[in-house]
Amino acid sequence: MSRVFSGIQPTGEPHIGNYFGAMRNYVRLGEQYGKQSLYCVVDLHAITNPAASDPRYLAARTFDMAVANFAVGLDPSQVTFFVQSHVPEHQELAWIFTCLTPVGELERMTQYKDKTAQLESVPAGLLMYPALMAADILLYKAGVVPVGEDQTQHIELTREIARKFNHHFGETFPEPQAVYNKEALRIPGVDGHGKMSKSKGETSTLGILEPLDSVWQKLRVAPTDPARVRRTDPGNPDVCLIFDYHKLFSDLPTIELVNVECRRAGIGCVDCKKKLMEGVTAHLTPIQERAEELRADPSYVRDALAQGAQEARAIAAPVMEEVREKVGFLKV
Amino acid sequence: MSRVFSGIQPTGEPHIGNYFGAMRNYVRLGEQYGKQSLYCVVDLHAITNPAASDPRYLAARTFDMAVANFAVGLDPSQVTFFVQSHVPEHQELAWIFTCLTPVGELERMTQYKDKTAQLESVPAGLLMYPALMAADILLYKAGVVPVGEDQTQHIELTREIARKFNHHFGETFPEPQAVYNKEALRIPGVDGHGKMSKSKGETSTLGILEPLDSVWQKLRVAPTDPARVRRTDPGNPDVCLIFDYHKLFSDLPTIELVNVECRRAGIGCVDCKKKLMEGVTAHLTPIQERAEELRADPSYVRDALAQGAQEARAIAAPVMEEVREKVGFLKV
Ligand code: SF4
Ligand code: SF4
Repeated sequence: MSRVFSGIQPTGEPHIGNYFGAMRNYVRLGEQYGKQSLYCVVDLHAITNPAASDPRYLAARTFDMAVANFAVGLDPSQVTFFVQSHVPEHQELAWIFTCLTPVGELERMTQYKDKTAQLESVPAGLLMYPALMAADILLYKAGVVPVGEDQTQHIELTREIARKFNHHFGETFPEPQAVYNKEALRIPGVDGHGKMSKSKGETSTLGILEPLDSVWQKLRVAPTDPARVRRTDPGNPDVCLIFDYHKLFSDLPTIELVNVECRRAGIGCVDCKKKLMEGVTAHLTPIQERAEELRADPSYVRDALAQGAQEARAIAAPVMEEVREKVGFLKV
Repeated sequence: MSRVFSGIQPTGEPHIGNYFGAMRNYVRLGEQYGKQSLYCVVDLHAITNPAASDPRYLAARTFDMAVANFAVGLDPSQVTFFVQSHVPEHQELAWIFTCLTPVGELERMTQYKDKTAQLESVPAGLLMYPALMAADILLYKAGVVPVGEDQTQHIELTREIARKFNHHFGETFPEPQAVYNKEALRIPGVDGHGKMSKSKGETSTLGILEPLDSVWQKLRVAPTDPARVRRTDPGNPDVCLIFDYHKLFSDLPTIELVNVECRRAGIGCVDCKKKLMEGVTAHLTPIQERAEELRADPSYVRDALAQGAQEARAIAAPVMEEVREKVGFLKV
């Protein structure tokens, strides 16, 4: 059976876009692949962005990201969940891949160009990022990589690096396949301005660990069908983000009811939002309670991460052994 | 007391230019600094050059470079001698430095420009090389770095990286000082075409482990003062590479004798070379005998390298501990 590798950025609290896009997918893959599914909080990637990796907060954000993922149902005793910097084999392999990767290919990466377009001075970590990402995946000979569509180019480069290594040093790595988390792309921000995204700030996102009264305050003022000015105007759920959220959080009868009643002005937007809030509450309450329990027991989280790093290293060790020998390093 | 760090490229057998330029310097610093002098065969740097790191030979070259250094008198029980790839903390710290180093500064390195001028595709390892070199040095908080003058820019970048890390994360690293091996630059190639250099091939070099009859064949045909056509012509030792070698290998009376007799045609070039060969033989014989002993006892060499890697990691461990905490990685 092939392995799954997922990188999780330790950048602030996850929102419902992350939850429906990636996190639920991790839980499902975790149930399917067990210990052969590796979830890695990528703090080594985070430091390529000095603004996002303030040393005062990086450890707390890493910890919080573990808490959030455990809270939504990723069970560290069933999957392999760890922190990237706890497994130095990632950097070890990244250096070897750096020596195999042409500068020109790294410069061509769209994400690199986007991230550096406005920068006066470009940290080399941003350029080398895809070599580290290739190491993350190939260190475990992972075949399945759940990612956002913005990572297509990096996965293709990972495959290219695998081919190049195999060609130079003998067959070693499989070529991993991307699996896309498409749902994430379709979840609108609660402020009505495009996709839900951390980079647009708090007004765009509904955090999965956000206090429910704060969630309600955002839903209460969220825009609905702009053509529906009066309560007596019929609305169109297809252009309303509240209806998009219903499809995620509400049961089928509720979704059907809103779809029918909105169109004939049989339900007001406030009531519609209150119905949504019931589904949100039912969904997030157990997650938030579990997160509270985990925060109250930090040694459970730390022990789980220490154990996860050991499990990851146990998989990585024979791979690195093979790599070192094939590259030709002296063994003593 | 400050520490010394020296990187040794595992690129073929050392020649007398390496010996008088760097290796003897290592022995002297080793006597002075003991275990606080670190000698590292930099196989991770070697793989930036695919042509120089054929996986079939890299391990043997690494081994041979240890043998050569032990043979000239570097005692692994007295200094810290190890192989770079045996201490993965080098790559671990290199990644962190990569995130601190602007791409522009790496592109400005003269050695990078020289090495890549003729390349159609530039491996990213060549660009990142100085970040790994900075990690080599700062991983041990070394203050003294014996290098060739071509490394001035890289040492300056290392100092810059140390300053930047200290500025971002708090005072951590000293700024290392380069110590130059000047003699190496002045040793002429035995073919009379400029400086002795591996890159010019076997005809330029006298290997310290080269069979003495092969050394003699090269000296025998080596050019001398070109103005001295007949045995009866007076010569000028100042323009003769044989006299340069006398200054390295012969005792003072012999040097003085050649200096006087050559100028008045009192000695022929063949006799002069034979006298040189006596000094060369006296110098190289014990080194070559010691190398034979070491080659006959590979487990001694391997054990010494394993021990050296342990000693190096014992120095690196608390430094990396400090670095990880200051960068803000979660500790579990
Ligand atoms: S009733 Fe519901 S779906 Fe219809 S416009 Fe109002 S909030 Fe949107
Ligand atoms: S006598 Fe010796 S120093 Fe003088 S030219 Fe001949 S080889 Fe050179």
